[in-house]
Amino acid sequence: MIFGCLLNLIFLLLAAKKVLIVYAHQSSGSFNAAAKDAAVEVLTTQGYTVDISDLYAMNFKATATAEDIKGDVKEAEHFRYSKETRLAWEDGRLSEDITKEQTKLTEADLIIFQFPMYWFSVPGILKGWIDRVLTSGFAFTQEKLYSLGIFKDKKAMLSFTTGSPESMFSPTGINGDMNVTLWPLQNGILHYCGFQVLAPQIFWAPSSASPEARTSMLEGWRTRLQGLLEEKPLSFIPLDGFDEKGFQLKPHVHEEHASKEFGLTVGVHLGKPIPPNCMMKAGS
Amino acid sequence: MIFGCLLNLIFLLLAAKKVLIVYAHQSSGSFNAAAKDAAVEVLTTQGYTVDISDLYAMNFKATATAEDIKGDVKEAEHFRYSKETRLAWEDGRLSEDITKEQTKLTEADLIIFQFPMYWFSVPGILKGWIDRVLTSGFAFTQEKLYSLGIFKDKKAMLSFTTGSPESMFSPTGINGDMNVTLWPLQNGILHYCGFQVLAPQIFWAPSSASPEARTSMLEGWRTRLQGLLEEKPLSFIPLDGFDEKGFQLKPHVHEEHASKEFGLTVGVHLGKPIPPNCMMKAGS
Repeated sequence: MIFGCLLNLIFLLLAAKKVLIVYAHQSSGSFNAAAKDAAVEVLTTQGYTVDISDLYAMNFKATATAEDIKGDVKEAEHFRYSKETRLAWEDGRLSEDITKEQTKLTEADLIIFQFPMYWFSVPGILKGWIDRVLTSGFAFTQEKLYSLGIFKDKKAMLSFTTGSPESMFSPTGINGDMNVTLWPLQNGILHYCGFQVLAPQIFWAPSSASPEARTSMLEGWRTRLQGLLEEKPLSFIPLDGFDEKGFQLKPHVHEEHASKEFGLTVGVHLGKPIPPNCMMKAGS
Repeated sequence: MIFGCLLNLIFLLLAAKKVLIVYAHQSSGSFNAAAKDAAVEVLTTQGYTVDISDLYAMNFKATATAEDIKGDVKEAEHFRYSKETRLAWEDGRLSEDITKEQTKLTEADLIIFQFPMYWFSVPGILKGWIDRVLTSGFAFTQEKLYSLGIFKDKKAMLSFTTGSPESMFSPTGINGDMNVTLWPLQNGILHYCGFQVLAPQIFWAPSSASPEARTSMLEGWRTRLQGLLEEKPLSFIPLDGFDEKGFQLKPHVHEEHASKEFGLTVGVHLGKPIPPNCMMKAGS
């Protein structure tokens, strides 16, 4: 009986979906910490295994240097980070801190990046994680990218706070449409590696909000977390919509879309208006 | 006579315009190094004073932490980087490495950021420079931003290499329109601080190019450098086009633009097609 229970438990643990939270805030008293803690609590309660990479606490190295490679580099005089780390990944010569993160990523079904937006992007320490962990060969190859990317069976999402209110990030606001700002991050990093990209969780200017409004934002996040892994991802163009040589949209896709009001995505807009909120909501 | 010459020389040195190159490549044998060296040579020959922040050689710290502040922080439990560094800047308590970069920036008439594009953005080490050096108060305030920004009498530009060819970054290419990828960098960082943004210098995939093509790219850059400081900057919307409360486009600007084919900028697109190449060429 006890043996059976143990077997069941082991089975459940092995079968449990895993979530990795890559977390980049300096303070445990921050709104970002509260958002991360809420995710841990709700997801764990639902039976998911949650791992955290707390980048500041880990003193995570943010710079892409030759120290990321164990032993000699191939071309010291003409050091090229992408090429050298690809070779090092093939030979198992990447530094321990990178390898550990790659293992966490490989085991995860969903990656949540939790951070305060700095300068319309991720903080330097998180950009360092992206630059160093998503090694060529490990995270993408020339053939395995976008919808055929290496992580196509995984999900990923951005969860972040802004300093400015939502209105400033509208298509008539001074910061410009948030969908544009999200394109390089969600298409160029997450979707590039194949991730199914879940809609971002944007906490608009919590530092200027009332305690009640902050609580309400966190409650909204908790509610969303309960169905997060079943959410439909954002739409991108399948890789076979582009020719293999120049990665240009195939003429038939272009023609099929000719009469449509909006472009296909923010970046592949075909000279048409950007599809509204396509980087913010699934099915847009 | 000699005294007169000396006075003239001192005058010329004091009057000489200054250029700061913020350079982020690991190797002196790289194409980025050659682009940086070409800038130093051509600009110096023309009488400009050129300063370089060689971020990897400086082992520049890329992470925004409490160590950036000398002495105690105000709220250790609820550390907020932006707020704490603003106070530290006001009190002259920012770390030496930040202060040094801020002095270089203050003295410069033009800043050139020279880097390889990593993941549709700047490398982590350069993002760290941006996060840490462009301190609230020093680089922007709530009133002094965009066209009324603190650095409105300075110019800035991105000069970078890509891994992918130009065609992949077209509005029908798989990476999407490069103008979209440039928006958060050029509007959200450079123009946000007031800089007049010169058109980017994009070296398309030099690592896949022939030696002749690489030489030709550098020659093009040398030619451009000769007139660089006289170039007309990219177009953005003046700050007074937005209302002061919500930073929304004023109704009369919206109306005046209603019949136009394209939006005003990539981000402030008003639901219209993006103005072609507006982040790549002045006057677009």
